[in-house]
Amino acid sequence: MWRTSHYYRRDMLVSELETPALLIDLNVMEANLSRVAAYARNHDLRLRPHTKTHKSTAVGKLQLASGAAGLTVAKVGEAEVMIGAQPPELLVAYPVIGRSKLDRLMEVAPKTKLTVALDNLFCAQQLAEAARRARVDVGVLAEVDVGLGRVGVQPGEQLVQLAISIDRLPRLKLEGIAFYPGHIKSNDEQGERDLKSLSALVQSILADFKRAGIELKIVSGGSTPALFHSHEVEGVNEIRPGTYIYNDMNTVMSGGCGLEDCAASIMATVVSTAKTGQMIIDGGSKTFSSDRLNLSSEVTFGRLKEAPEAQFTKMNEEHGYVDIRRAQREFQIGDRVNVIPNHVCVAVNLHENVYGVRNGEVEQV
Amino acid sequence: MWRTSHYYRRDMLVSELETPALLIDLNVMEANLSRVAAYARNHDLRLRPHTKTHKSTAVGKLQLASGAAGLTVAKVGEAEVMIGAQPPELLVAYPVIGRSKLDRLMEVAPKTKLTVALDNLFCAQQLAEAARRARVDVGVLAEVDVGLGRVGVQPGEQLVQLAISIDRLPRLKLEGIAFYPGHIKSNDEQGERDLKSLSALVQSILADFKRAGIELKIVSGGSTPALFHSHEVEGVNEIRPGTYIYNDMNTVMSGGCGLEDCAASIMATVVSTAKTGQMIIDGGSKTFSSDRLNLSSEVTFGRLKEAPEAQFTKMNEEHGYVDIRRAQREFQIGDRVNVIPNHVCVAVNLHENVYGVRNGEVEQV
Repeated sequence: MWRTSHYYRRDMLVSELETPALLIDLNVMEANLSRVAAYARNHDLRLRPHTKTHKSTAVGKLQLASGAAGLTVAKVGEAEVMIGAQPPELLVAYPVIGRSKLDRLMEVAPKTKLTVALDNLFCAQQLAEAARRARVDVGVLAEVDVGLGRVGVQPGEQLVQLAISIDRLPRLKLEGIAFYPGHIKSNDEQGERDLKSLSALVQSILADFKRAGIELKIVSGGSTPALFHSHEVEGVNEIRPGTYIYNDMNTVMSGGCGLEDCAASIMATVVSTAKTGQMIIDGGSKTFSSDRLNLSSEVTFGRLKEAPEAQFTKMNEEHGYVDIRRAQREFQIGDRVNVIPNHVCVAVNLHENVYGVRNGEVEQV
Repeated sequence: MWRTSHYYRRDMLVSELETPALLIDLNVMEANLSRVAAYARNHDLRLRPHTKTHKSTAVGKLQLASGAAGLTVAKVGEAEVMIGAQPPELLVAYPVIGRSKLDRLMEVAPKTKLTVALDNLFCAQQLAEAARRARVDVGVLAEVDVGLGRVGVQPGEQLVQLAISIDRLPRLKLEGIAFYPGHIKSNDEQGERDLKSLSALVQSILADFKRAGIELKIVSGGSTPALFHSHEVEGVNEIRPGTYIYNDMNTVMSGGCGLEDCAASIMATVVSTAKTGQMIIDGGSKTFSSDRLNLSSEVTFGRLKEAPEAQFTKMNEEHGYVDIRRAQREFQIGDRVNVIPNHVCVAVNLHENVYGVRNGEVEQV
């Protein structure tokens, strides 16, 4: 990401870029960065942003400069890249399985303070064994499921036992617990109720550990939709939001940000208007991803900034079908549109280049 | 694609590969290749396979060696790569818009017999202008919509007029017409009816051209689901299937192939079994794509070869949720599973490496 493209000059105008092109409005991105950094600072929350959204060492460095304690990644390949941002701490928020990956991870370990989140003893034993071979120490967060039903053991005795077992393994040090409240998707009354339940659950988890005499340095939670309510979950002292750096239509739908906070858009060109009431743009599932819009019964794949009433309803690999019957303007072949994607993390993953733009000029790539 | 990976040795066993890994069973791929080549030969159909499925010059060369007249691509970047397979003919089955892309395409033109499919005069004029600047000649197929409602003008006067206008432009030569019968998705009675309508429509289109005194050298259609019925569409003399080289669950669902004809699978590792009746595998929307299964009301993201009764029902970016309550076997953390993706073209697009395997060994990468 942010690699120099073959067809890019430093003083290029956005209008000169080929489409489809993933653009980041740097002013908006910087505002997102500052807002979340200030929020974390004000509420005394450690910020360890998840870099799977941008996969860029340049952006990782900006996050660290704005006050992040460290960075988070989801896989070994991301850890190998993100070490380039020189994070003082790196969290791998994913159970790493298999000798080959673990050995690669152990080469990253000496360059930062490495922590791995995991939810089972098999994984912890493999990690300890790899750490022993590499003669490094690794921190561990015991992962607990607080409602998403993905990874993480159940709260209660199971979690405490996992934590105790981890801490007994050589070369591993239990630093705390981690969870991902991905089941909280909205900022409405339902979201509020879910947050209150979560807060009560975390309290009871912390009481379990207190009874067991185990000190948890880190209680790590946080996602983008519920980001600005993280301080309401009592006991949490670290957040790991990812999407906030760019935001997307799903964040807008969740109430986690406004349309004006979306830094990322995909610029596409109208390539056919052969069918009345419809236009085809030069991007489909290989450009936007097939991720549908959350919290909506309508199937749409992004919002056109130039025509919010248009409906991006269908995709093939390289074709986007936009229903323009309700649009307030006409489009011609060759016109360019800017589409805010539903899910920016997977869209970024599909692009070789990400163009940072400010006032119509390409500033960073 | 098929690039040498950092962690790959030539004599590697499949069991030594890191996951997630996209594997191609070379025996199955070769059988798919031969079967379609033989079908095209037997029915006197030119075969110009779409390479967007594999994006590999190695596979493109195999297609040419098996008797393909040329290759098809969807974009300029693909044309630049696929010229490496030295195709005698290259079809860009996509309207190319914008000077920068057209100039890049004109650099490809001298290396092959280049043809572009397009559906509007603006695009044809831009193409003619680029060809004039580059002093090359370019063939054109006039694109007609036969029911999908994507690109292509309507059959009748509009199509004939487009063809006439194209042929009048300097440096362009009208070679024929192209269409994509993507609306035919099944091999059942509905599919049969759709094919009959399509055949009648093509007949009427050809009659229009005959009346206008225009000779069409190429009548190009064909997709993977209806592939083996292409000869039933009277007048068609070229097919451009793409997915057939690997096949996927959507092809299986369409009746276009059997499960045993699926050459591609994604090998993943079980990383968590924390939730009863469910396992998490180390691949999600960044590995499989979010493409759902066509022609099915159930939301699933691929079929596990090791447990066909398991339901791959949900994904996040790096997590796959597999419901194993109906599975006939148990899974442990560290177990590997092989998943046939719903839509192989977008899955291939997500992977840095594609591993060709035969009898458990990695033969080509």
